[in-house]
Amino acid sequence: MSRFLNEKYLSLEAYTPGEQPTDMKYIKLNTNESPYPPSEGVIEALNSEEIKKLNLYPDPTGNQLKSSIAELYGVNKENVFLSNGSDDILNFSFMAFCNDSTSPVKFPEISYGFYKVYADLYKVKYSQISLKDDFSINIDDYMGNDATVVIANPNAPTGLALGIEDIEKIVSNNKDHIVLIDEAYVDFGAESAVELTKKYKNLLVVCTYSKSRSMAGARLGFAIADSEIISDLEKIKYSTNPYNINRLTMTAGIAAIKDNNYYMDNCRRIIETREYTAAKLRMAGFELTDSKSNFLFARTPKMSGQELYSILKQKGILVRHFSSPKISDYVRITVGTREQMDKLLDTIEDILKDK
Amino acid sequence: MSRFLNEKYLSLEAYTPGEQPTDMKYIKLNTNESPYPPSEGVIEALNSEEIKKLNLYPDPTGNQLKSSIAELYGVNKENVFLSNGSDDILNFSFMAFCNDSTSPVKFPEISYGFYKVYADLYKVKYSQISLKDDFSINIDDYMGNDATVVIANPNAPTGLALGIEDIEKIVSNNKDHIVLIDEAYVDFGAESAVELTKKYKNLLVVCTYSKSRSMAGARLGFAIADSEIISDLEKIKYSTNPYNINRLTMTAGIAAIKDNNYYMDNCRRIIETREYTAAKLRMAGFELTDSKSNFLFARTPKMSGQELYSILKQKGILVRHFSSPKISDYVRITVGTREQMDKLLDTIEDILKDK
Repeated sequence: MSRFLNEKYLSLEAYTPGEQPTDMKYIKLNTNESPYPPSEGVIEALNSEEIKKLNLYPDPTGNQLKSSIAELYGVNKENVFLSNGSDDILNFSFMAFCNDSTSPVKFPEISYGFYKVYADLYKVKYSQISLKDDFSINIDDYMGNDATVVIANPNAPTGLALGIEDIEKIVSNNKDHIVLIDEAYVDFGAESAVELTKKYKNLLVVCTYSKSRSMAGARLGFAIADSEIISDLEKIKYSTNPYNINRLTMTAGIAAIKDNNYYMDNCRRIIETREYTAAKLRMAGFELTDSKSNFLFARTPKMSGQELYSILKQKGILVRHFSSPKISDYVRITVGTREQMDKLLDTIEDILKDK
Repeated sequence: MSRFLNEKYLSLEAYTPGEQPTDMKYIKLNTNESPYPPSEGVIEALNSEEIKKLNLYPDPTGNQLKSSIAELYGVNKENVFLSNGSDDILNFSFMAFCNDSTSPVKFPEISYGFYKVYADLYKVKYSQISLKDDFSINIDDYMGNDATVVIANPNAPTGLALGIEDIEKIVSNNKDHIVLIDEAYVDFGAESAVELTKKYKNLLVVCTYSKSRSMAGARLGFAIADSEIISDLEKIKYSTNPYNINRLTMTAGIAAIKDNNYYMDNCRRIIETREYTAAKLRMAGFELTDSKSNFLFARTPKMSGQELYSILKQKGILVRHFSSPKISDYVRITVGTREQMDKLLDTIEDILKDK
């Protein structure tokens, strides 16, 4: 830290992304990436002719990509916002729609760890709402109409999803505040709230290409909402970094929408592999949540989450462990290929056999 | 605008990027892009094997690219910060190092238009310091040690550069504040202040791949400074969007450093073309600044800047015009290829022949 840093950031604790160790080759089940590569259409679109145009700025409006997304989701392009990954959109949303005096923010105590960081960064007062004992969200806790609401659906790292009726209740009972539904994992079995954006002017749905569309490395997020909300986000984007999606990612994003069936087929394979792995883990004595995402949230009575994480890492398999007390028994395991999960299951059997 | 927007942004005026019209094919001399494509090494590096890995997150630390840049610039990788374009770095810098109470900001009245937007965005008090009548910067205006100082060197849109001794005087006379030198255009004939970062803990040099390295479309900026300043910027980045450089851009950035000679040769060609064009324009009665950048700043006594811009646009050539009164006589013309500049010169001759 330098002595020049604005004092309001002195106590800020930044987000810690999942580890990316380079000391050996791991089976990487710790950052919820897709195990499948981008579609052939994406690979073809990013050809040398496109690369040769990198000397030119990308289109800051992203109109072509917005139109592709709008068509797929049945909205207008004025309802679509694009940014450099969905973290960027969350960042802009906390900037734009939260403030201490009239719009503090509430989100579940156990959820994506970045929400708290954004609230700290912008000095927004926040409430972290406890989950029920089974990790589910009690929607009655979000009916106050007294704060911006941020809910990941499915939630992370629990994988549990709210039904669309519950989401609608939250949205319709918070009309004076934005309700942000973070749908990073929605394509793995939950219901999207996109259709509700046509009915509610306070609903902001945030989506990403990082999970179901195999493009975590490309950095592409989008949001769908009423056009006035989109305008607000555009104002923040054009006041920070207007060209924030690069040319190749924009091109890949358009190509991926054309290949939507490939990605939705992959989601079905991941769901199958998830259910297969969950059943095997339950047979091995694990307790799991009913995940509707591309990860499992699991604990064994035989050892702590930290211990299981550490032994798996020694054996070349990376999963994610969170030290916060209420979930420290658990590990979060990204659903990879069937082969990767069989390797995981064999390794876990081996680890636990003498316990 | 929605009724949910934080009221502190109500009067914010976002930055306006150079136009990117799609109604016809223009000779595009309005956004200071390089007319040359990326190097062969970049094109080879972005092969289908790399594209197939887009399902995986990029390395958020960017260590390999940092090492490449550090080696080229003769610093350590702890002195290098990476982000999604240099606008992103400017944004983080205004967040991190300015605040109204102890560190307001000053910058030249005529300079990159985004500085004012960042100051407005973060509600930082700012002073826009007048230039001399010849558009040069009077360094005595920056000796107060009372504010963060932001100077583009060469300045935009004037193209004029300060010598390294003048930069050092400003840095050494502002030790209680960050001096940010924006070197977006430095490779076209000005002196870089990077070496001074080893001597001064308050100097932050911001650089980009967008101009001299033909990668405006890839979005890659970097900054060089004392490691404590870099840590501050990392803290902000990890609190907003840790994975903010995508995989392909990271790969391209490393490959471009290996091909540095190609890019520096291109800079020499652009400088030659700039001087050739400037001489021709002077012969045609234009008045020009002594630009050390990849653009010319020129006016003719025969018509206003707005008129020249408009007629050139009708004839298929895009240049940039700024309406602010002190520079509204001028147009800013990006230096393209020799062929593009000959076309520009012929068109201007044609426009002015009856005036």
